[in-house]
Amino acid sequence: MTSYDQIMKLALERGFYFPSCEIYPDAPAGFWEYGPVGVNMKNKFIALWRRELIRRDGMIEIDGSQIMSRSVFEASGHLRNFSDPLAECKKCGSIFRADRYLSEKLGKLIPEGTSETVLNLMISENHLQCQNCKGEFKPVTRFNMMFKVGIGSSNDVAYLRPETCQTIFVDFARVFKTMRGRLPLGIAQIGKSFRNEIAPRQSLLRLREFYQAEIEVFCNPDRLDEMPKFDEVRDITLNLVDDKFHRDLTAVDCLKQGLLPNKLIAYYLALLADFYGKTGIDMKRTRFRRLADDEKAFYSHLAFDFEVETSIGWLELVACNYRADYDLKGHSSTSNHNFEVVEPTDQTKVLPHIFELSMGIDRSLYSILEHSYREDFRHDDRVVLRLNPYLAPILFGVLPLMSKPNMVEKSRTIHSVLRKDFDSVYDESGSIGRRYRRLEEIGVPFALTIDQQTLVDDTVTVRYRDSMEQERIGIGDLKKFLDAKSAVD
Amino acid sequence: MTSYDQIMKLALERGFYFPSCEIYPDAPAGFWEYGPVGVNMKNKFIALWRRELIRRDGMIEIDGSQIMSRSVFEASGHLRNFSDPLAECKKCGSIFRADRYLSEKLGKLIPEGTSETVLNLMISENHLQCQNCKGEFKPVTRFNMMFKVGIGSSNDVAYLRPETCQTIFVDFARVFKTMRGRLPLGIAQIGKSFRNEIAPRQSLLRLREFYQAEIEVFCNPDRLDEMPKFDEVRDITLNLVDDKFHRDLTAVDCLKQGLLPNKLIAYYLALLADFYGKTGIDMKRTRFRRLADDEKAFYSHLAFDFEVETSIGWLELVACNYRADYDLKGHSSTSNHNFEVVEPTDQTKVLPHIFELSMGIDRSLYSILEHSYREDFRHDDRVVLRLNPYLAPILFGVLPLMSKPNMVEKSRTIHSVLRKDFDSVYDESGSIGRRYRRLEEIGVPFALTIDQQTLVDDTVTVRYRDSMEQERIGIGDLKKFLDAKSAVD
Repeated sequence: MTSYDQIMKLALERGFYFPSCEIYPDAPAGFWEYGPVGVNMKNKFIALWRRELIRRDGMIEIDGSQIMSRSVFEASGHLRNFSDPLAECKKCGSIFRADRYLSEKLGKLIPEGTSETVLNLMISENHLQCQNCKGEFKPVTRFNMMFKVGIGSSNDVAYLRPETCQTIFVDFARVFKTMRGRLPLGIAQIGKSFRNEIAPRQSLLRLREFYQAEIEVFCNPDRLDEMPKFDEVRDITLNLVDDKFHRDLTAVDCLKQGLLPNKLIAYYLALLADFYGKTGIDMKRTRFRRLADDEKAFYSHLAFDFEVETSIGWLELVACNYRADYDLKGHSSTSNHNFEVVEPTDQTKVLPHIFELSMGIDRSLYSILEHSYREDFRHDDRVVLRLNPYLAPILFGVLPLMSKPNMVEKSRTIHSVLRKDFDSVYDESGSIGRRYRRLEEIGVPFALTIDQQTLVDDTVTVRYRDSMEQERIGIGDLKKFLDAKSAVD
Repeated sequence: MTSYDQIMKLALERGFYFPSCEIYPDAPAGFWEYGPVGVNMKNKFIALWRRELIRRDGMIEIDGSQIMSRSVFEASGHLRNFSDPLAECKKCGSIFRADRYLSEKLGKLIPEGTSETVLNLMISENHLQCQNCKGEFKPVTRFNMMFKVGIGSSNDVAYLRPETCQTIFVDFARVFKTMRGRLPLGIAQIGKSFRNEIAPRQSLLRLREFYQAEIEVFCNPDRLDEMPKFDEVRDITLNLVDDKFHRDLTAVDCLKQGLLPNKLIAYYLALLADFYGKTGIDMKRTRFRRLADDEKAFYSHLAFDFEVETSIGWLELVACNYRADYDLKGHSSTSNHNFEVVEPTDQTKVLPHIFELSMGIDRSLYSILEHSYREDFRHDDRVVLRLNPYLAPILFGVLPLMSKPNMVEKSRTIHSVLRKDFDSVYDESGSIGRRYRRLEEIGVPFALTIDQQTLVDDTVTVRYRDSMEQERIGIGDLKKFLDAKSAVD
């Protein structure tokens, strides 16, 4: 099975991602950059998200500020609740995230909301000491994970948002009105969020600055089964887990068996599964895990994590939370703003409830890389990233078979005609085999080779990454070929 | 002429942009959100930028962290130099940006780098008082405009980047190597930057959190005229201003007349002009203004601002700076990292120089809106945003002529087939005339009307926004029609 280290090596060597500010010793941990290949792949992932979730469902998207006022987090509960338990060694001053330290040392899951009292008890009962110096721990304290910033010369307190969704809640009334919204309505946002993790780790998997794609579905809690569009997704497969694993059930069967409470939730989970199916993630290695009460976030009434199996265990890619009226009620009472909307069918006023799909983009990209990575020992130990063409960072390479001037010139001309429309590379250095390898490793689905015959009949050889089969295509047909091959099914 | 207020009204009423955290009294100034229509337009602007600058030129793009370590800004000079002069009233405590206050009161430009001594002298010589209470000012002090954040439980100092380019400089060595770069090479980045402005103002025009699209061209200072691709852009028109206005000169004439120092700079200014020509900005109302020595930023050897004329004066959209070796030298000496690269032709080592195109996305979008806005009093006082189809937030609306069930059903079916591929709306409420108005106001180029004839022969009426002409098109040909019409020329 592909390992975390293999992906990391590929990422660093080929420009998927790498540590931020790495030339400086004071580079803070938990910050990573996307290199050129990573940026393209991320952009294509986002384009697929827009296509298969936003436009398909008729959602709308906003893009708000990352710095938000103190009141927002007063209302949201983050000032009170958004903190990690911190265990500090009395002797050497080492700092650990208490719940995770306990979980590692005791080999069992410590739920996120566990109180300081319980954590202290577990530390003393198990005689846990600092792993660096065997010192004793001070009592566990709580550390708020939001980054504070001072605004203007008066240094007014504001925060970097710890989740993108707060923008959506705060802006809801204006957006719903200007866009002439009707419930249920999904409002989405892609952007950076910031969490001052005590112990960031594993590159893209626990970052202090990360990309979220969050969808907040505003709905009427009395009409969660009025979803005619559910029929479009009823046969999509979901792997649901509660106390047992219900494999390969369709969305409609999950409803019938009472594993999901209503059509709205079933519809959006199915839509999400359909989306991830198109990313190339192996859906047999995914699950929707219903969280136990002590695992849920403080705002959640019902929670499913969409998880994917990787070499380092099951990874949460999307948190699906029924947040009910927690958010709009909180912002309403703190701001004295009315968030109720009128249902046009019967003129009743309703404070919308919210069902959320909170996606981690960085983790999703990591998972796609891991599930797409293949080593093919039959052929030169080649490494192939079997990305779907519409997610491939580079769609094709243009390769002159030999470095003869007329072949090179022809190749450059072909490339210059196509380059504006597609992400592509031109490569003339090294043997053709080595050039194929370089392309395969970053998932380029097509190699266009320009050879002697090209100069005669204006055709090129198209070589397919996965099958290594080749066919000849006329230069004039290339754009059409590439458009068709990079379309989403 | 279109006014700032007209655009602001449209932006607020139709979901282009609006203030952040507006429901809260402690919402900090200088933060704005893009609404659904604004997000789409911004995404299309960025897609055009990628097409016409990045892919056309063969640049590469990265996407780095916004929080960067202290050393970065030690090396870049921002800790010392990136500050605004601040005038505080002794009596009421009001705070002003000293240079701008002087400039407003005295009606003349105060260069950005003017020293505190000179500013204090100007205040006293002109007997300037606080405009709020007539109080005297304290001596001018300097206020660093970077936002500081504390990392981890030890609260290590880091900063939100004040410009995206620092990421590109810091990452240069790795990116150049992994991507097997050759000079000249453009490395670009789109992302947020943050400046703690003393007096943010005018919505998208002076923000504390804003979008930049920066291109840093790494080049060999001895080979600035070795640019064969200059020939592709030699006839593009530039409006250059130094002490006089040289209108409508081609790039090659600018070179011949000695107005531009080398082909590399001429090439990139021409590429930029070509890009903006495609955004719909009226290029006759643009100029490249060569900055005087006392106007330039501290790192710049030669600077041209690309400016566009708007209702509130000439607006800087892109700062084009020849930064020479300022950046790599600074990071090299602070980090002890070697940034030299080897020229493959003669194996010489060279520390690349940098020519930068630093674009403000928010301001660009504002300018496009203003230049596209038309009031057409001949027809119902209609407001039309004449956006190019490839920049229009919504490409088409699907409108059933009447709200008959079969027409509505047919319309929804047509929409559901097309919606994944294009940004579109479905609208059945109000008279057809009112629905056209709503679409025109946000720049939707095409309205597809479904009428009685559609039910008979599967054709729809396509109405063109600008000419208001109509033609009938078969449903099966719509995708092809829309693809062709939204392609960039």
